[in-house]
Amino acid sequence: MKIITAIDSMKGSLSSIQANNVIEQVFSSQDISVKKIAIADGGEGTVEAFIENYGGSYQKANVHNLIGEEMQATFGWIEEEKLAIIESADTSGIQFLDGTVATHPSNTNSRGVGETILAALDLGAKKIIVGLGGTATIDGGIGALNALGVEFLDNNHKNIEPFGENLSKIQEVNSTNIDQRLNDIELIIASDVTSHLTGTKGAVYMFGTQKGLMKSELDEYEESLKSFQDRVLLGQSTEAGDGAAGGLGLGLRTLLKGKIVSGFSLLVEYSTLIEELNGADLVITGEGKIDDQSLQGKVPVGISRLAKENKIPVIAFVGSVEGNPKSFKKQGLNVVIPIVDKIMSIDQAMKNAKENLTRVAERTKDILFILVDSIN
Amino acid sequence: MKIITAIDSMKGSLSSIQANNVIEQVFSSQDISVKKIAIADGGEGTVEAFIENYGGSYQKANVHNLIGEEMQATFGWIEEEKLAIIESADTSGIQFLDGTVATHPSNTNSRGVGETILAALDLGAKKIIVGLGGTATIDGGIGALNALGVEFLDNNHKNIEPFGENLSKIQEVNSTNIDQRLNDIELIIASDVTSHLTGTKGAVYMFGTQKGLMKSELDEYEESLKSFQDRVLLGQSTEAGDGAAGGLGLGLRTLLKGKIVSGFSLLVEYSTLIEELNGADLVITGEGKIDDQSLQGKVPVGISRLAKENKIPVIAFVGSVEGNPKSFKKQGLNVVIPIVDKIMSIDQAMKNAKENLTRVAERTKDILFILVDSIN
Repeated sequence: MKIITAIDSMKGSLSSIQANNVIEQVFSSQDISVKKIAIADGGEGTVEAFIENYGGSYQKANVHNLIGEEMQATFGWIEEEKLAIIESADTSGIQFLDGTVATHPSNTNSRGVGETILAALDLGAKKIIVGLGGTATIDGGIGALNALGVEFLDNNHKNIEPFGENLSKIQEVNSTNIDQRLNDIELIIASDVTSHLTGTKGAVYMFGTQKGLMKSELDEYEESLKSFQDRVLLGQSTEAGDGAAGGLGLGLRTLLKGKIVSGFSLLVEYSTLIEELNGADLVITGEGKIDDQSLQGKVPVGISRLAKENKIPVIAFVGSVEGNPKSFKKQGLNVVIPIVDKIMSIDQAMKNAKENLTRVAERTKDILFILVDSIN
Repeated sequence: MKIITAIDSMKGSLSSIQANNVIEQVFSSQDISVKKIAIADGGEGTVEAFIENYGGSYQKANVHNLIGEEMQATFGWIEEEKLAIIESADTSGIQFLDGTVATHPSNTNSRGVGETILAALDLGAKKIIVGLGGTATIDGGIGALNALGVEFLDNNHKNIEPFGENLSKIQEVNSTNIDQRLNDIELIIASDVTSHLTGTKGAVYMFGTQKGLMKSELDEYEESLKSFQDRVLLGQSTEAGDGAAGGLGLGLRTLLKGKIVSGFSLLVEYSTLIEELNGADLVITGEGKIDDQSLQGKVPVGISRLAKENKIPVIAFVGSVEGNPKSFKKQGLNVVIPIVDKIMSIDQAMKNAKENLTRVAERTKDILFILVDSIN
């Protein structure tokens, strides 16, 4: 029999590839072939998942991180397609947050993302995928855009420094000096965040505090972003995804003519999942946390819908689950299985995620085949 | 298909009957018949399990508890067989322990057990099952025996009060005035405790502290029990089970010629388990705690061995599990499934055992049928 495993990362404990490896180790046998599909949503792990599924190489670029320190970025490169895959979190991610004023959104930017795009252009990229998600910046993308030649001017026609705190000062955008190679490439913005830039579900009110904004700062920061949005949109409408990665979505979409697509869908497109579903007997998916309010757009649900079309049953292993099993079943997700199986703290659950998943997967395998064996 | 559920009680949270009811509720459907077998080991829940499985009525008797207070005992009665089922814990159980000197083993006895036996004799009992386990007394059974007419004399040939503290004073046992009806009945002592009366695994060193003995009192109490054992055995050898229920095992076996049998085996004998196994597709069992050191004599293992003879797969739901799944499999126990499935404290696990078992059983049902359905 054939099993497909496509588990999303369990943030803070297991990457998609690590989780899939556990499933392969538990289920693979003489009678069972396990096909692994790495999963990502545009955030951390996106490059790794692409290369794992599709092949390609890792490239390095000398860039700056969100506070302007020199660093080496890593991006994916698929030579046959002249395709670069860039994770915005690599240079602007929450891993840099240290609680000091230096990493406060006012003082950071997405410059490193733009510099990594430049490195991809230098390699001859014809197509660039920029994965959003997991960033600590809220700069509307001005850091990245500035690195690519876009200038942001104040009401005295002077260049402003592209940091979060200066968003409200921007009166004019000058794209004259933009890197001309950008005109000849396809830019794809991969994101599973469907927020608009502003509003209660936007970059500030939804994600601001986890990036270091104090509650008392939210209203003012929101106003700055609104002002910036007006200068950039010039009457065009906003789109779902504009608010991803602190507005990097909006910046890349409007000023670089990028196309926002679902990170998960893109991953599927660049994997053999659809072909492999043909003839599969079981799909195993999973993620860190699932609840029935957040079913929309979650990886296990996306996987389940594809499996359902092929009438293949689906199991999801999750760190935690809240909600009604029936709502999962409607989506083609036969059963959601938490990987907590004894009295433990959250810390222990995170720290021992691999052991916990292994144990629960082994047990699940045993249960799965009990009646099959007894019928045969 | 046909499922048998025979889950042992999960002490402190679910009775065997309650646990089986959960399984019935989860699994029973148009296509699945669920046959429930109540389980007990001679301790708390034994009477209820007998009546549940075999039918019969509950009888009341006015007796005294372990500290001499008047109370109403409940015992089982199967009229066709003139069979009484008595739980020693009903009148002498740990539920009476209150940490005061009154309930200290020195000051308590098993009188209520003897009085309940008298009530059964009054009903015309021809066979009496006394379940041991869960008692707070360590009196060698002298309280029960005295209630039935046996006298214990000191070195002045004077009757001694039948309490724990007087065990060492007993020089002579006088059974002349024993209730003569006891000669015409079959007395069965049901216990899954295989301790001898004395020694490191005996009634004092193994169970003493949980019944209120201080560590400093253990050696002296052990000596008293040894002295009593010598007066009673008079050279006969000890038996496994003598140490159950604070020596009630020894007292009933020797002075009332009772026969010690496994409580679990007796339960099976008085149930339809063996017949029902014929044609069953799956057996569900379980208990509060399982580990591979304690596999011997545990209910899930006993059930699994019976199922294995019939080549029927077995699932066990447990409160907690330690040990190697392979050691369970060797016993015919296909999979051991803990009913903890999220971050919770032990208190929450105990308190919400019914909800936890329900959730995990539902999930297990879903997993069980995934591949079956996909094959059909």
